[in-house]
Amino acid sequence: MTLKQSARGVVEPFHAMDVLARANALRQTGVDVAYLCVGQPEAPAPKKALAAARAMLDSGTVGYTDANGRLDLRNALAEYHRDRYGLDINPQHIVVTTGSSAGFNLAFLSLFDPGDRVAIAAPGYPAYRNILKALSLEVVEIETDESTRWALTPEMLAREHAIAPLKGVLVASPANPSGTMMTPDALQALVQACSDMNIRFISDEIYHGLTYPEDTGIEECSAARFSDDVIIINSFSKYFCMTGWRVGWMILPEDVVRPVERLAQSLYISAPELSQVAARYALDCKDELEIIRQGYRKNRTLLLERLSELGFKDILPVDGAFYAYADCSSFTNDSMHFAHKMLDEAHVAVTPGIDFDPVRGHSRLRFSFAGSTATMQTALGRLESWLK
Amino acid sequence: MTLKQSARGVVEPFHAMDVLARANALRQTGVDVAYLCVGQPEAPAPKKALAAARAMLDSGTVGYTDANGRLDLRNALAEYHRDRYGLDINPQHIVVTTGSSAGFNLAFLSLFDPGDRVAIAAPGYPAYRNILKALSLEVVEIETDESTRWALTPEMLAREHAIAPLKGVLVASPANPSGTMMTPDALQALVQACSDMNIRFISDEIYHGLTYPEDTGIEECSAARFSDDVIIINSFSKYFCMTGWRVGWMILPEDVVRPVERLAQSLYISAPELSQVAARYALDCKDELEIIRQGYRKNRTLLLERLSELGFKDILPVDGAFYAYADCSSFTNDSMHFAHKMLDEAHVAVTPGIDFDPVRGHSRLRFSFAGSTATMQTALGRLESWLK
Repeated sequence: MTLKQSARGVVEPFHAMDVLARANALRQTGVDVAYLCVGQPEAPAPKKALAAARAMLDSGTVGYTDANGRLDLRNALAEYHRDRYGLDINPQHIVVTTGSSAGFNLAFLSLFDPGDRVAIAAPGYPAYRNILKALSLEVVEIETDESTRWALTPEMLAREHAIAPLKGVLVASPANPSGTMMTPDALQALVQACSDMNIRFISDEIYHGLTYPEDTGIEECSAARFSDDVIIINSFSKYFCMTGWRVGWMILPEDVVRPVERLAQSLYISAPELSQVAARYALDCKDELEIIRQGYRKNRTLLLERLSELGFKDILPVDGAFYAYADCSSFTNDSMHFAHKMLDEAHVAVTPGIDFDPVRGHSRLRFSFAGSTATMQTALGRLESWLK
Repeated sequence: MTLKQSARGVVEPFHAMDVLARANALRQTGVDVAYLCVGQPEAPAPKKALAAARAMLDSGTVGYTDANGRLDLRNALAEYHRDRYGLDINPQHIVVTTGSSAGFNLAFLSLFDPGDRVAIAAPGYPAYRNILKALSLEVVEIETDESTRWALTPEMLAREHAIAPLKGVLVASPANPSGTMMTPDALQALVQACSDMNIRFISDEIYHGLTYPEDTGIEECSAARFSDDVIIINSFSKYFCMTGWRVGWMILPEDVVRPVERLAQSLYISAPELSQVAARYALDCKDELEIIRQGYRKNRTLLLERLSELGFKDILPVDGAFYAYADCSSFTNDSMHFAHKMLDEAHVAVTPGIDFDPVRGHSRLRFSFAGSTATMQTALGRLESWLK
C-alpha cells in the first residue's frame, strides 16, 4: 500500500538549510565550522531587546496576542517608518508576523488562487519559489543580468503579462543572494507599471538598514513611498539581529488587512509574544545596530578583495544585505558538490548557487558575511589553503 | 481599478481570536475582563522552562535551528513518548514545529493536492476547516452527535469515501470544543479503517496530558500505538502552558519526514529557538504541571455544576481538555451576538459555537476553564447577575 503524498509538496530543498544542518552535525562532532552559509547575524539581539525579554520572563505569562500582533509593537513600527522613511503609515495597516516567512505565505494566500501567475527574479530567494509552488501558484521566474542590474523591469513584466496575465510580482531590494539594489527611479517605474497592468506588487524589504551608501552611493528606498497599494514585507531577523526569534511585519493596503488577519488567526494564531515584546525595544537601538553595520562594511570590503584574489569572479554589486554572490567556475560547475566538499574538508559552510538560480547557479556560491570579521578571516584563510 | 484578492483566502474568521482582540481592546480601556474565550492556560510556563530561556538570553545568540528542530529537543521528545506512552519513537521521525498550527499546515501541504477531500468532525477546531480551505482542499465536515459520543466512525468515513475518495482524516481526542475523547478501541478501529481505505490519518493530540481519569474513568491513548503510518500533531501550548511561545511537534511516518522538512525550510525556516530551548526543560516538569491539572479538575467540576444551574444545557462529556461546550438556547439562538453582548455588558469573554460548528453552533458557547479557579468564580458570579 502506498499512502498519498502531495505533488505540490515536492519542492526543492532550501539548500542553505541543508548545509546548515550538515554544518551543525559536523560541529556536534567537535569540528570548528566557519558559518558563511545562512544569512544570520553573528551578533545577538540588541541589549534593550534582550532586557525586555528578560523582564517579561520575570513578570508575566507569555501568551497569544491579537493575530495581527501587539498594539504597542504596531504603533512603534508606525513611528519607526515615520522616522526612517518619513512615511505616515496607519498602525491598523501594520500586521506583525512570525518572521517574513509568514509574511510571504499570508500575502500569497490572501491574494492569489491556484494557477495564478506570480513573477519573481532569478537569481532570488529560493523560499519565494518554493512557497509559491507549495500553494499551487505558477512561478514565473524571470532571468535577470547585468544589463538591468539584476532587476526586473516594466518591459519584462509586460512581456510575461502578454503571454498570460500576471497576478503578482515580488521584488527584493536589496536582493538575496546578490545584495543588489534597485534605484528609486527603477523601483517607482516598476510599481507604476504594476498599477497600470493591475498586478499586485509585493516588496520584500528585509535587508533594509543593511546598506552601504558610503561605499556605493546608493540609498535604500521603500516601495511604500510610491503607492498605498503595495504589500511590504519586513522582518527583525537581519538588520535587528533577531533571526531565531521569528518576528517580522507587513504593511498592507486597507483591503488586505482583514483577509490577512483571518488567515493568520487560523494559520499562525499569533507571532511569538516574547519576540514581539523584544522587537518593540529593538526598534530603539539604532546606535548599537550601527556598530554592527560598520562591521559588515569591513567584512564586505575584505570579501570583495580576497575572494577575487582566490579566484572567485564576477561578484554581483553588493549594494546592501550581507552576501557576496560569486562565480566559482574556475573551480567547479557543480556548486552543490563543491559546497559540500568545502564544508567537509575546509570546514567552511557556504551556500550553492542552485538555491537561488536553478539554471545558472551551478557555477555560483553565496558567501554570507553576517558573521564577525574574525570569522571572515578564518574562513578566507582556510579557503586559501584548501584551494591550493 | 480593483486589485486581486484570492477566493481561497476568504475563510471564516476564527471568532475566538476576534473575541480575544475585542476583549484585549476592552481591557486597554481599564475594564477587568474574565477571559474564558481562548484555550490558554493562565499559569505561566514551568519554572525550569523559564530558567532555561533566561540562561539562553544571558549567554547565547538566539538563531535559526535545523528546520526540523534542535536535536536535543527531538531526543527529549522521543524519551517523553517512551516514558508517557511506552512508545519507541525514532527521534529522526520527530519534527519540531512553530506550534501545532504549523503542524497542520505542513501535514496538509506535504500530503494533499488541491481538490483532495479531507474529513473532519463537526463540532471541531475551526482552524482545521480554515487551513484546509485556504490550501484549496475540499473540507468534508461530518456532523457527530451523542450516538457515537461525538466521534467519527469507520462507517461515516466509508460512506463519504464511497461518494468520492477521501485522502485524509483529522481526528482530535480529547477534542476541541467538547473535550470529549475516543475510547482506545474506537480510535484503533478508525486507524485500521483508514489503513484499509488508504486514507491518511492525522491525530491532533494537543490536549493530551489534560485528562481527568479520576473523574471520568477514561484514559488517553495515542494513535501512534496502533500504526507507524499515522501523523501525530502535538504542542507545548496547552498541557505545558506555553501558548505564546509557539512551539509544538509532529511524529511522522518515515516517508513524510523529508517532504515536511523541505516545506518547513521555506515556509518557517525553523521554530523560535528560545522556545525550543525552554520546551526541552518543560518536558521535565511533571510535578508542577500536575498541580495545574488539579486546578483544571476543580474548575471543571465548578463549571459543570454552575453552568447548569445558570440555565446552560447539554454540556458535552468533558473527558479532557479545558472546555465546556454548552447549549445556550434558553437565552439565544445567535451565539455570536450573545457572546459579544456578554463581553460588553458582563465583561466575560467566551467563544460562540459557530466557530466550531457552522450549523448547530448558533445555540452553543464554549467556556474555557484554562484560567484560575478565581477567574472561573468571578466569571460565574458576573454571569449570574447578568443573566437575571
